[in-house]
Amino acid sequence: MHTAGSSETVDARFVGKLAGYFGFEEEKIRHLFEKKYLARNWGEHEHLFRFDKEISHIERGTLFYEKDDSFEMVLGFPKIRRAMVLYPTLEKQFEGLRSVVVEEKMNGYNVRVTGVNGEILAITRSGYICPYTTEKARGKLNPDFFNDYPDLVLYGEMVGPDNPYVPKKIYDVESVEFYIFDVRKKNTGDPLPAARRREILEKYGFLQVKSFGEIPLETAPGEIAKIIRNLGKIEHEGVVIKDPAMVLPSVKYTSSRSNCSDLKHAFKFYNESGRDYMLSRIVREGFQAVEWGESEAEFKKRCMQLGESILTPLRDSVQNVKKGQRLYDEVRIRVKDLKTAVEFEDYLKRLGVDSVFENPEPVGDEYRITIKKVNKSTNDKTEAIWKGELW
Amino acid sequence: MHTAGSSETVDARFVGKLAGYFGFEEEKIRHLFEKKYLARNWGEHEHLFRFDKEISHIERGTLFYEKDDSFEMVLGFPKIRRAMVLYPTLEKQFEGLRSVVVEEKMNGYNVRVTGVNGEILAITRSGYICPYTTEKARGKLNPDFFNDYPDLVLYGEMVGPDNPYVPKKIYDVESVEFYIFDVRKKNTGDPLPAARRREILEKYGFLQVKSFGEIPLETAPGEIAKIIRNLGKIEHEGVVIKDPAMVLPSVKYTSSRSNCSDLKHAFKFYNESGRDYMLSRIVREGFQAVEWGESEAEFKKRCMQLGESILTPLRDSVQNVKKGQRLYDEVRIRVKDLKTAVEFEDYLKRLGVDSVFENPEPVGDEYRITIKKVNKSTNDKTEAIWKGELW
Repeated sequence: MHTAGSSETVDARFVGKLAGYFGFEEEKIRHLFEKKYLARNWGEHEHLFRFDKEISHIERGTLFYEKDDSFEMVLGFPKIRRAMVLYPTLEKQFEGLRSVVVEEKMNGYNVRVTGVNGEILAITRSGYICPYTTEKARGKLNPDFFNDYPDLVLYGEMVGPDNPYVPKKIYDVESVEFYIFDVRKKNTGDPLPAARRREILEKYGFLQVKSFGEIPLETAPGEIAKIIRNLGKIEHEGVVIKDPAMVLPSVKYTSSRSNCSDLKHAFKFYNESGRDYMLSRIVREGFQAVEWGESEAEFKKRCMQLGESILTPLRDSVQNVKKGQRLYDEVRIRVKDLKTAVEFEDYLKRLGVDSVFENPEPVGDEYRITIKKVNKSTNDKTEAIWKGELW
Repeated sequence: MHTAGSSETVDARFVGKLAGYFGFEEEKIRHLFEKKYLARNWGEHEHLFRFDKEISHIERGTLFYEKDDSFEMVLGFPKIRRAMVLYPTLEKQFEGLRSVVVEEKMNGYNVRVTGVNGEILAITRSGYICPYTTEKARGKLNPDFFNDYPDLVLYGEMVGPDNPYVPKKIYDVESVEFYIFDVRKKNTGDPLPAARRREILEKYGFLQVKSFGEIPLETAPGEIAKIIRNLGKIEHEGVVIKDPAMVLPSVKYTSSRSNCSDLKHAFKFYNESGRDYMLSRIVREGFQAVEWGESEAEFKKRCMQLGESILTPLRDSVQNVKKGQRLYDEVRIRVKDLKTAVEFEDYLKRLGVDSVFENPEPVGDEYRITIKKVNKSTNDKTEAIWKGELW
């Protein structure tokens, strides 16, 4: 995927400045550029550098750029680890707290939005500037926020059907919306406490992920189990459990529905999906079955759901390739300006994503464009097997 | 696993001799010993060297030793690749043949048996001399064969319930038996043609894997599908399809039952089973569902079987650890001489297998011993999760 970025010609003076800023040896800086662990964005954003790999506790996707006589940094998304069972995990992970904040974990794609030298930019999880998401952010977010708080970064989830990465119709979103779950300071990555975050965001009329409130730590496992069952029923993903002060690391917990939905997508493209990704989602089902003390009938239902989530997309992919079709992921975007679509097409190309953009259809004062993303590896593997190759 | 083997002190003269024999640089020979890709057996077998890795087309598990003024080599098991679908795979892989030989693929553990300097030895897939299997081979195989054919090696499957590696009760075997599927020459690894192999083995009264006969290539896919369905019904694993002359490489094809049975074992010990091993067995189900043109009802049944094969062992493991039990694989052996059991215990210890041997129970003029093999990684991971650790 990450084949993008212009070949790096970084002068010695700049290497020295970076080494000083990060406290690395100059040799290490050069090595990071050579390996493309450190790379530039391109085009009008080529002054924005990104870490393509976690380096010495700097999260992958961290973005930085020159500012005054130094640098300014937008830190990557902190990893949120997963509770496999609620009890005793919450008790252990949030030891010493009286209560935790429970918020919905939405299923879309992660984006940071912030002002960079006075310009609002949408930065993907990997640290790219996505032109589509940037158009959306600029259209949706009150620009006063970025003037009032130039040192803050919005961390959120872009959800809805007009979504080129993770399209979902399960939310009450007509096209695509940006739901914020975190606000952090530039350079340090320090988060705002949950209540302060909600207060500021409300003032600017920003959408925020749903809060299930502050729940006493003692009763949290039972209450969250109930929340998860209800979220599962409406096909929502799960929750993130947070220290109200945002000092201890957050923990996530997801519904069986979301595991199965991940598996459905993963097995459609069985040859490129990560093995660990698939396995971890299967293993969660085993833990949840025990944690929830299921009856045999409920357990059989869970087995059937798991089996179908795996085999149905797998069979369909195998069948479609047999019929001579290509396997692809169909997504769509909706833009005000067709120029954004052209930029987005170029952007996907630079990322090495094999995609076909269909003709724009007018929708109100906007254009909807369907995109077919081809998954070459599963296509080729399946086709080879139908031509008599061995596994 | 492969932590065994005494630390290597190989003198320069010997390195030179090996380099000459294999056509490698001396530096490479030293490197192979350092990395333990080339290692000795231990104790009374320390003159037997094994390749612990495939090196320049020499199969992993290949064994060799000094003989006269050179070396003699027992080649490893050739990899048998898998047909995901029978048509057009057989046509392509066996192009130019009029027919193929179809033989049962049994579910046990692979062993080579041959005479090494006049002594009958059982060599495992990895090239170790297994004391238990050696006792069995000596008790079961007519020694005349090894005198008459000192240059031949028997390649077979040890199956039955008294089996410390892959115990199965699905065959008509009371304790354990050695079924031969291949006979090859020392040093070159050249196989005997199928008919010649059967003829020789019959003469010595050796057990052989079941043959389904020679089948015209044209009708093979349909006929093998029938064979596989019948084998599946009695929980047998599958078939190996061979060039009668044994010139083209053999191809295997297995039943859904065998995939599910592999998955059951793999998910019991979810944290140590290979990701690729698990995934490949799941993917086969997708191909077979399409290949066999299943009805929706049959497909639902396959989904349920898959789901249960994965979730039942997973749930049981998670549940058992929650109750404070340790997860283990229970197997048993049956020996004439208790000294063999002691040697086998020492052997497993040298291989790094964590196992507990229970007290021997007399069975006729033999002793049965139950062995509990502990799978530490899945135990520890599951226990940690129940104590509140994150994934």
